[in-house]
Amino acid sequence: MLDRWHGIAAWFDSRLVEQLDTLGPGCPTRLREAIGYSLLAPGKRFRPVLCLMACEAVGGSLDDSLPGAMALEMMHGYSLIHDDLPAMDDDDLRRGRPTCHVRFDEATAILAGDALQPLAFQTLLDSNLSPEVIRESARILARAVGAEGMVGGQMDDLLAEKRDTSVLSVEERTEWLRSIHRRKTGALIQASVELGGVAGGASPQVRQALSEYGRAIGISFQIADDLLDAEGTSEKTGKKTGKDSARGKLTYPAVFGIESSREQARSWINDAIASIQCLGNRNEPLVWLANYILERTH
Amino acid sequence: MLDRWHGIAAWFDSRLVEQLDTLGPGCPTRLREAIGYSLLAPGKRFRPVLCLMACEAVGGSLDDSLPGAMALEMMHGYSLIHDDLPAMDDDDLRRGRPTCHVRFDEATAILAGDALQPLAFQTLLDSNLSPEVIRESARILARAVGAEGMVGGQMDDLLAEKRDTSVLSVEERTEWLRSIHRRKTGALIQASVELGGVAGGASPQVRQALSEYGRAIGISFQIADDLLDAEGTSEKTGKKTGKDSARGKLTYPAVFGIESSREQARSWINDAIASIQCLGNRNEPLVWLANYILERTH
Repeated sequence: MLDRWHGIAAWFDSRLVEQLDTLGPGCPTRLREAIGYSLLAPGKRFRPVLCLMACEAVGGSLDDSLPGAMALEMMHGYSLIHDDLPAMDDDDLRRGRPTCHVRFDEATAILAGDALQPLAFQTLLDSNLSPEVIRESARILARAVGAEGMVGGQMDDLLAEKRDTSVLSVEERTEWLRSIHRRKTGALIQASVELGGVAGGASPQVRQALSEYGRAIGISFQIADDLLDAEGTSEKTGKKTGKDSARGKLTYPAVFGIESSREQARSWINDAIASIQCLGNRNEPLVWLANYILERTH
Repeated sequence: MLDRWHGIAAWFDSRLVEQLDTLGPGCPTRLREAIGYSLLAPGKRFRPVLCLMACEAVGGSLDDSLPGAMALEMMHGYSLIHDDLPAMDDDDLRRGRPTCHVRFDEATAILAGDALQPLAFQTLLDSNLSPEVIRESARILARAVGAEGMVGGQMDDLLAEKRDTSVLSVEERTEWLRSIHRRKTGALIQASVELGGVAGGASPQVRQALSEYGRAIGISFQIADDLLDAEGTSEKTGKKTGKDSARGKLTYPAVFGIESSREQARSWINDAIASIQCLGNRNEPLVWLANYILERTH
């Protein structure tokens, strides 16, 4: 199944290169380079593969969900570029390479992120999907990355660093942590599954099941990320590790400890898998994907 | 007619406040404040009023073009916040008030801009316009603000500051200047007129006429802006003036001189007015608006 993932990711990458090539001469060379540098950097392509596999799981084709998958990766790419900025998380290493503002400069990095957002919408809007699928997909995407989703989560994550969370009760810290992660990372992962479902023509019931699956794997994905940061090495993750605790960030290992965090990740993965029983045998790639997230925590 | 403009702008502002109020509890208070601070700052609301008046000029209602008008102002607001950042134009005064990153901080300003982009699309996508009008409007908007439009123009504008333009011929400098302005300011102004036409159900011929009108007033708007910066005071413009020449920016007055710049602005306005003769009497507000731009240059 890992081979299948890699195969889909490689196919997706070549389609993504073609999509970037459609940018006309009005796009400055430097901007095009910065967008390509960040977007095409080596990566797992977790969100687009999730979208493509979810679409297949409900009977759609990879081509049906390609516009949504590209839009998701563009949104993810923009968020990484902006999150790494000096005024934000101030990271200089990403996917094993200098971050966009280090390789280019801050202004170029801000603009590359700013350009990726409308490019994501454009990719969906220009596609040959039906107007209803386009509208529904774009709505899901806009909400997931907006002030109540990804950007809101990033804002609260930055505020949490400045807040003395030690005065909060365990319940309050847990609620705060979950609320941040649900928006900062979870919303786009959940949207990835939902976009696959919409593109594949899923029924309302199946869409609901996919939505619950997406929510649950989104949370466990973030727990796994926190665990990797606490335990991993930069060789393994391609970015600096141990930074979260150095900055006093609110993370699962910090609030619950390593073992309890692992248990929670497992519990969410079990919930995710239970949610998609209604898909029958077709759910296998999504079950495998959920378990793969869990493996990262060990 | 100025009263009519102010009346529409006041109505628009109250609708915009209502739209921001739809942001749910997932949006952090600080982010909501920064968005409101920038978006609702006193301003002429040139782009939304242009969109609303264009819609009326083709027989549509203000309500038809309200979602597009709000989306345009949100995109304009995001672009101002990001353009003012220290890594970009580094401005601390905007619309007579401290800029967003001065009043809040850089991270909040970046995120407020990042949140306004999907909010603009969401405003269009959630509206009760027909799926075809929504799709077409969102496509026009995405293209206008993207890598080949507004963001591309801003990138080249920043690069122009670092480039020794004195080695270029007059023709090369003129071409470079026009290309930057067409994208940086012109694209969104042109899109404002086009969105009004689409929302009002204009025929392809009328849409083409509006598009030419929008292109021409976009160029003269930028010339007027350059002239204001060269001649105006910050009391009049609400922002620092004389900055362009201090930074060696490529501007119309710098390339052509004050008088020739004024003549070019007039010539574009004449072209704009000629483009919309096909609208008959209904074109009056748009004719007035075009002439109003020209008055700013004196």
